Amino acid sequence: MKRPAAPLAASVDFGGTGVKLALVDAAGRVRQRLAFDTRDASAPADWMRRVHTAIQAMADRAGVALDRLAGVGVGAPGFVDFDRGVVLTLPNVPGWDDVPLAPRLAKRLGLPVWLENDVNAMALGESKYGAGRTLGSAVFLTLGTGVGGGIVFDGRLHRGAHGLAGEIGHHSIELHGHRTPTGIGGLETYIGNGAIVSNARARLAKARKKSALAKLPDLSVKDIALAAQAGDAVGVAVFDHVAECLASALASVSYLLQPEAFIIGGGVAQAGAVLFDPLHAHLKRRLHPRFCATLRVLPAALGPDAGLAGCAALVRQNLP
Amino acid sequence: MKRPAAPLAASVDFGGTGVKLALVDAAGRVRQRLAFDTRDASAPADWMRRVHTAIQAMADRAGVALDRLAGVGVGAPGFVDFDRGVVLTLPNVPGWDDVPLAPRLAKRLGLPVWLENDVNAMALGESKYGAGRTLGSAVFLTLGTGVGGGIVFDGRLHRGAHGLAGEIGHHSIELHGHRTPTGIGGLETYIGNGAIVSNARARLAKARKKSALAKLPDLSVKDIALAAQAGDAVGVAVFDHVAECLASALASVSYLLQPEAFIIGGGVAQAGAVLFDPLHAHLKRRLHPRFCATLRVLPAALGPDAGLAGCAALVRQNLP
Repeated sequence: MKRPAAPLAASVDFGGTGVKLALVDAAGRVRQRLAFDTRDASAPADWMRRVHTAIQAMADRAGVALDRLAGVGVGAPGFVDFDRGVVLTLPNVPGWDDVPLAPRLAKRLGLPVWLENDVNAMALGESKYGAGRTLGSAVFLTLGTGVGGGIVFDGRLHRGAHGLAGEIGHHSIELHGHRTPTGIGGLETYIGNGAIVSNARARLAKARKKSALAKLPDLSVKDIALAAQAGDAVGVAVFDHVAECLASALASVSYLLQPEAFIIGGGVAQAGAVLFDPLHAHLKRRLHPRFCATLRVLPAALGPDAGLAGCAALVRQNLP
Repeated sequence: MKRPAAPLAASVDFGGTGVKLALVDAAGRVRQRLAFDTRDASAPADWMRRVHTAIQAMADRAGVALDRLAGVGVGAPGFVDFDRGVVLTLPNVPGWDDVPLAPRLAKRLGLPVWLENDVNAMALGESKYGAGRTLGSAVFLTLGTGVGGGIVFDGRLHRGAHGLAGEIGHHSIELHGHRTPTGIGGLETYIGNGAIVSNARARLAKARKKSALAKLPDLSVKDIALAAQAGDAVGVAVFDHVAECLASALASVSYLLQPEAFIIGGGVAQAGAVLFDPLHAHLKRRLHPRFCATLRVLPAALGPDAGLAGCAALVRQNLP
């Protein structure tokens, strides 16, 4: 007798520019996928229609009736109320203030729907199916234009008293550092994409002849990472600074929470050893051996699918 | 028919200078208390004997047989292994490396014994019976010679992957700050008692005539707090600096964990409004309104009994 397969979960990774959808199996593998441009359906009513159509299309392709799916997990790029399934506000997508996304989509699809912050979904995906799959607790960071985070304790997201926990991008690393609406000295203002490029430009202005980067008309984090990998002094110095700033925040979080591991994803983490090697060195300088010896720092394993995997995990761990 | 009273728990607050013991009721109230000087019985064997005698004496006074106590909770000033009940090392009490305190004391008393770090015990006591008694989660800090912390989520201590979480005193507030064996820029090196006195001395050297503190032959945190309360400019400036450094760390912890509240205890917190008023102001400058509006910052309520209450809570929440 063939054991019936666990039902597929539908995942919706709602990004600032694109919406990615997938059907995900119980092992966290993407079985079907679809995508559309956020600008093509950014208003809530259009968005619901497009998401409904896409999930139906994926179910058809998989040969599964819609009502046989386990449920739907949605990761949204902003503030959400997990308990009520409401989008509070999305900084980069207008028209989504106080939208009851989960109840509306649930009614439309006839399926249970859970809504999470997008970075929390990535954290859950990496913890459950990715770099942290053998671990019980981890702090996840994504390094890109912004710096986001998510915390998983005992396999569950730590959401905080009002659902907004995990905002490690605003962790202060300098008492009198950069001022922004989110505080003073926030990590993101030192190691976000823009800060990395500015830092490289400032260094190039002082050492123009010595760096291959000086020849580039434009400059991206990827260029700087490639230069660092080739041993370029400016590139190496920029990534050492990123690692130092990051290590300061991670050391503080280690002292506070002592997680089993940090999982680091996002575009900046693609730099690989030129980031991770100095990161380990700076952590050693900033942590007592009792904390440093057992701490693991892991590159994220799922790349752009972390959010989809996490949305599916969200469905599976909240099923009755 | 009279309902039988819940059994009393025995608490042992093992400090660097003194050992305080109590019998605590189910409401967290101390019913009996005793104490001895740590120097009088600092070796483990002597310590066990003294603790045994003291608990027996308190039980006799309460008219309760030893074996009718609910159990024993011990808070120890250093690194402990909660699961095994072993003291790993106590920085200020020699002779306690890898001592199986809980199993040994349990065998001796015929009672279950749980061992925690002393600050974790205080955090649990304040959360369960003190300033946080109506809250589900809180981050506790004690400000004194050192700065310690403990985290309570959903009524339980967060111990971290290897039992050492809560060391907020080593949270870095400056990327290139003070260097110590525990890292760079650690909070404790800015707002520990010694740092506060040094800061006041440095300010007095520049503004000697203006401050009442200049007349004092010696200087303590209490003197500085009293001067600040009387409006002395140096005293006020010193506590504003303490508040600013503390706010930097608390803002970062809020962004990461979004606790319902911070509970602040220890000698420095006795300063009252001259600490808490600027602390609120600095937090407002360092936190987005979505985080600041719901955050509570509470003075600890149990004073020197927080540890005793927490040891009792430890017993009650771990009973089968």
